[in-house]
Order: sequence, then structure tokens, then C-alpha cells
Amino acid sequence: MTRETVVDSRQEILRTAARLFQQRGYDATSMNDVAAALKLSKGGLYHHFQSKDEILFEIMNHAMEITDERVLNPVRAIADPEDRLRALIRLHIEVVLSPRDREITVMLHENHPLPPSLRKRINSRKKDYIHFLENLMAEVQNKSRHAHRAKAKVSPRAAAFALLGMINWIYQWYKPEGDLQAQNLIPQFTDLIFGGIFA
Amino acid sequence: MTRETVVDSRQEILRTAARLFQQRGYDATSMNDVAAALKLSKGGLYHHFQSKDEILFEIMNHAMEITDERVLNPVRAIADPEDRLRALIRLHIEVVLSPRDREITVMLHENHPLPPSLRKRINSRKKDYIHFLENLMAEVQNKSRHAHRAKAKVSPRAAAFALLGMINWIYQWYKPEGDLQAQNLIPQFTDLIFGGIFA
Repeated sequence: MTRETVVDSRQEILRTAARLFQQRGYDATSMNDVAAALKLSKGGLYHHFQSKDEILFEIMNHAMEITDERVLNPVRAIADPEDRLRALIRLHIEVVLSPRDREITVMLHENHPLPPSLRKRINSRKKDYIHFLENLMAEVQNKSRHAHRAKAKVSPRAAAFALLGMINWIYQWYKPEGDLQAQNLIPQFTDLIFGGIFA
Repeated sequence: MTRETVVDSRQEILRTAARLFQQRGYDATSMNDVAAALKLSKGGLYHHFQSKDEILFEIMNHAMEITDERVLNPVRAIADPEDRLRALIRLHIEVVLSPRDREITVMLHENHPLPPSLRKRINSRKKDYIHFLENLMAEVQNKSRHAHRAKAKVSPRAAAFALLGMINWIYQWYKPEGDLQAQNLIPQFTDLIFGGIFA
């Protein structure tokens, strides 16, 4: 088996497991269910992952990798802070709405308690994202073309949590057939945040 | 047993169950665990609730009752739409941060799938709240003292989901010892929303 095949089948397992966890609930889904859905033997599944907690951790870890690759890395290259924040809002909403990644990224909100060592690693990646966003909010408030205004009333930290809440909550109400879709949601959330942080 | 005592013990059961579900995860907590934590016999517990799903449903239902009593009903009495929205933001954040109610209200975010008939009843109460908020946003945008401005770029519906996301996400990052507490969070989220919906 080539390295490529191994990576592919690991990602395939994570994707299928994520879908089952959402449909049936994390605890109601057994390793047997995951193996059956993938037409794998239980031994074949355990060859890749030793426990359901490991699968959940790897799903969450993969969700953070997707966020790094599709949101953080592309925006780091953007020089102007306002443009960087606009791009971050757009790309993050696109990841959250992506039919391909939604099953993976929504698992970041699973409340099942992971073993402390695994939980720590996920939380530390989440914190990196929050700090990046908080610093970006501060930069936008300080250096933007609105900088002649009075000191902002909304702190970078409150603004960062507000934006994350707005975006990470989308999965709770989003309907593929609804009126709010990426093309009108992105400009509205962008206007709301820019209006808000310069309030 | 008086009616008062029955209500009290039902609420006591819901509160204890909510705490256990958060500490250990919903599925990892058994009816036996709930009974033991309350020093009840299993029969005593089943006298009140026939299943764990029923307990989860009643916790979520109680969370919506708390929201009605402590947020919706008080704000309905406020004539001015801007004042009504300000009060709603303050009261909703206070409920989310309340040490007494937090264990109950956080369970609204539990992803465990409820039986369809129960899920429908919770979703219908959640929708009532969203519609109230959406109508309020529209009223604020139309009738406020900023109404001379150009047509708002953020729709009432997007604004309603944004605010719900900001508030309902608080439980993910809030720390009782952190810098962001009700007294500075409420004015910042209020400024952000008012700045945003008039952007």
C-alpha cells in the first residue's frame, strides 16, 4: 500500500465516521457501524484507528487542518489588514458551508469529552486561531482607513469571539434550500462585522 | 406530595442530569448515574421520567421556558424597538452567563438526535425566538432614530442569526475568571450589533 492510499483511506474513514456521528449521535455509533458503512472488517478499521476517541480526535484535528489550509494560510499572504479580514470571513464561511468539508468541520462542535491529552491538542489549535483573529481585529481597528475615528468601543477580543460565534453557529440554521447562501451571507456578515468594530 | 414538591424535584432532577451530561457526555451518562447522583432509587427516577431522551427533551424545554420568562416576556413590554433590542441582548447574555441556569441552557446545543416528535417541539420553540428577533431587527432598522440613513445592507434575518450565534457561542469560550464578563461583554456585543445593522 502506498503512502497516498493510506492517507486516502484514513480520510475516507474520517469522512464516513463524521457523517455517521452526525446522523446517529457520537455515542450511539459503534466502531462496528463505522466498519460496516465502509465495508471494512473490524480488524481493518482498528488497523487505522485504535478507538472511537481517536477517530473523533482525528476528525477534529483534520477540521483544524482544513481551516489552516483553506483560511489561515491563504489570508496570511494578504498585506492589507482590512482585505485580510474580509478574506478570512469569506473563506471561513465557505469552509463551513462546503458540502465536502461540512461533515468534518461540524464535528468541532461535538460536546463529547475527549481524553484530556487529546482535548488539549485541539484546544491549543483553536486558541491559535482565536489569537490570529484577535490580532487581526486589532490591526484593522488601528491601521484601517477608518483609523481617524474615535477609539473603538468593541475590543478585538470581543470582536473575535463575536465573529467566530456568527460563523460557527451557521451549521445550526443553514439550509441548502434557504434564502441565505454564501453569496448573500458573506457580504452581510462582512458588513455587520465592519460596521460593528468601527461602532 | 404537594404539586410544589413535584415541580421542585423535577427541576432538581433536570439540573443534576444537565450537569452530569456536560461533565461526562450525554451517552456516557446512564439513568443509574442520574439516580445515584440524586440519591434516588432507579424506580424513583423512572417515576418522574421514563427515559433519558425524555430527560434531555425536558431540559431543552425548560431552557426555552427560562428564555421565555427571563428574556422574551420582559422585553415584549418595552415600547421602543431600540430599547427592546438592547434589553433582549442584555437579558439573553445574562441567562447564558447565569451560574444557576447555564447547566440547563447549554444543553440546547447538545447534538444528540432526539426522537422526531420531541425534536419538532424544541425546534418550533427555537423558531419562535428567531422570528421574534428577526421582526425586532426589522423594526429597529425601520423605526429607529437612524432611520434617515440609507437602506440597511444587513437583512433582519442575517442580523438575527448573527446575534444568536454571538450569544449562543459564549459558552464555548467563557471563563468565570476571564476578562470578558457580563458588564463589559453586554455593551460590546450591543455596540457591535447596533454598529452592524446600521452599517
